[in-house]
Amino acid sequence: LDEGAMNAAREHQDRLTKPRGALGVLEGLSVRLAGIAGVCPPPMPEPAAVAVFAADHGVHAQGVTPWPQEVTAQMVQNFLAGGAVVNAFARQTGAEVRVIDIGVKAELPPAEGLISHKVAHGTADMTLEPAMTPEQVRQAVEAGISIARDLVAAGHRCLVTGDMGIANTTASAALIAAFTGRAAESVTGRGTGIDDATHARKIEVVATSLARAGLDGATDPMAVLAEVGGLEHAAIAGFILGGAAERVPVILDGVIAGAAALAAAALAPAVRDACVAGHRSAEPGHTAALAHLELRPLVDLELRLGEGTGALLALPLVQSAVRVLREVATFDSAGVADKA
Amino acid sequence: LDEGAMNAAREHQDRLTKPRGALGVLEGLSVRLAGIAGVCPPPMPEPAAVAVFAADHGVHAQGVTPWPQEVTAQMVQNFLAGGAVVNAFARQTGAEVRVIDIGVKAELPPAEGLISHKVAHGTADMTLEPAMTPEQVRQAVEAGISIARDLVAAGHRCLVTGDMGIANTTASAALIAAFTGRAAESVTGRGTGIDDATHARKIEVVATSLARAGLDGATDPMAVLAEVGGLEHAAIAGFILGGAAERVPVILDGVIAGAAALAAAALAPAVRDACVAGHRSAEPGHTAALAHLELRPLVDLELRLGEGTGALLALPLVQSAVRVLREVATFDSAGVADKA
Repeated sequence: LDEGAMNAAREHQDRLTKPRGALGVLEGLSVRLAGIAGVCPPPMPEPAAVAVFAADHGVHAQGVTPWPQEVTAQMVQNFLAGGAVVNAFARQTGAEVRVIDIGVKAELPPAEGLISHKVAHGTADMTLEPAMTPEQVRQAVEAGISIARDLVAAGHRCLVTGDMGIANTTASAALIAAFTGRAAESVTGRGTGIDDATHARKIEVVATSLARAGLDGATDPMAVLAEVGGLEHAAIAGFILGGAAERVPVILDGVIAGAAALAAAALAPAVRDACVAGHRSAEPGHTAALAHLELRPLVDLELRLGEGTGALLALPLVQSAVRVLREVATFDSAGVADKA
Repeated sequence: LDEGAMNAAREHQDRLTKPRGALGVLEGLSVRLAGIAGVCPPPMPEPAAVAVFAADHGVHAQGVTPWPQEVTAQMVQNFLAGGAVVNAFARQTGAEVRVIDIGVKAELPPAEGLISHKVAHGTADMTLEPAMTPEQVRQAVEAGISIARDLVAAGHRCLVTGDMGIANTTASAALIAAFTGRAAESVTGRGTGIDDATHARKIEVVATSLARAGLDGATDPMAVLAEVGGLEHAAIAGFILGGAAERVPVILDGVIAGAAALAAAALAPAVRDACVAGHRSAEPGHTAALAHLELRPLVDLELRLGEGTGALLALPLVQSAVRVLREVATFDSAGVADKA
């Protein structure tokens, strides 16, 4: 973060025609966005692009969700056809949707809007063996970095994380437990809305995987990703690293992005500064991840959909925060009296 | 609310390509918006218009704020010049700004975008006498109704409340105390950010006004407005009544709108159904008003600016909720498997 730009933003906020501090959380956000960009006012965070990283999970075999694994590939087709909620929210907010096959089990035919970086046909079952090899993790992280760089090179000034992968809240819970040191039962939620029996099984699957891997929180983040992560988690971690390196804000979606951000921050703590927590999902692990990252979510409406939907809802708020620094008149320029 | 349209919206939500309930608060909101419009899917709530009702307050003489009274008129000029935060947020969200002089103390020259409905040159000092006459309240309420009708007739499909009036959080606190039965000290906040001594004086001013008026919560809402309200409160109450009658959603801004909505709901309880709580402000009285109205705010970021700014931040969320019903594919149409 650029301290000079942040100080300039703080001073400018205090001259604008409104009571000091009256924009609450958005004032601090505007200051941080100046710090990310290194200039005050920062550029408008637009156009924005949401990158939906899609992958499958070997742990699906353990019965952690009632959704068939084929739904990952079917939802990719839905994204490409413009029929999913992420597409509707992107149209509402003027964001572009990019879908990245980072590890879908099925073969996906080439299509406009689909970027193929398939590292594997899904991960291995983390209850039995490491979900990924170190080389797979490295490839997925590098793919995420390159996607971020390409989007910024194409003119995007705000990156938004998205994800699709049946069973990916199970891997997210394991990652969050590993990075925050919390117990499996405190960070494992109901994902798409599973019943009590499936939830109990899911908690056991997370605990079993952590025990198998012998993770104690002090391990190399790439190793944690390999043991219990997903290909989309590794790619999103890279996407965050790439966005931070390019000095553009990265709006995080829900629990999958939260788990990936923990990995990214473990690799390079400074990247946390480029992250904006778009929303807080209904998943308990997401709350734990945000607390660990010390990020306050902008939207908190019990969403639990993923795809990037919660982050897109926050995009206009982020843009509004910047717009204040760029467009609002000062007491002097508007001829408005300051308080006594 | 139209039960048939709401049932159709609930059934449609359950066929869309997402886990049932995964959009959290936005699903219930989309159902209510169908009920307001009486059709499923409801029309997109656009274009939207934010009506900023400006007025002055006789209670300013009691030293409840460090801001000079002239700032009300100066900020009206700022709104008309496009330099205020409400203008910036309106540009971000595609809303139009209308400024209504419902009772500014100063004479305002005619200007494009300014609608004159001046009922009085500010209210009287509510610590000493009723703030308004019954006739003034009636005129202000009717002005609010006519503004809402005119905006809908001009094609607007979403109304957003805004306000400007130095000292209007003092009148808001008195209204909220009267309508909810709470004590002055529990609903009187720091407005623009006053110091401890001014806050203590403000609480005493609210308590004194309520005691003078002899309000016990069982009084006629028009009489409550006359005793301790503001011209903008009366006009916003009318604006809500008018919007509800026209079957368009009315997004409420902060504590001033909350106080006005209590008056509107006391006059006609069904209008509550047309109200969407845009945000929750930092004012304690606003939390009390929302609880009494049983409305859950969409944005909760400690804003305390007014003008309509918090409500405008919520506008894209409301539009996104409707867009889901209008645009998202069903499991059948997209060829996506439902859960087992």
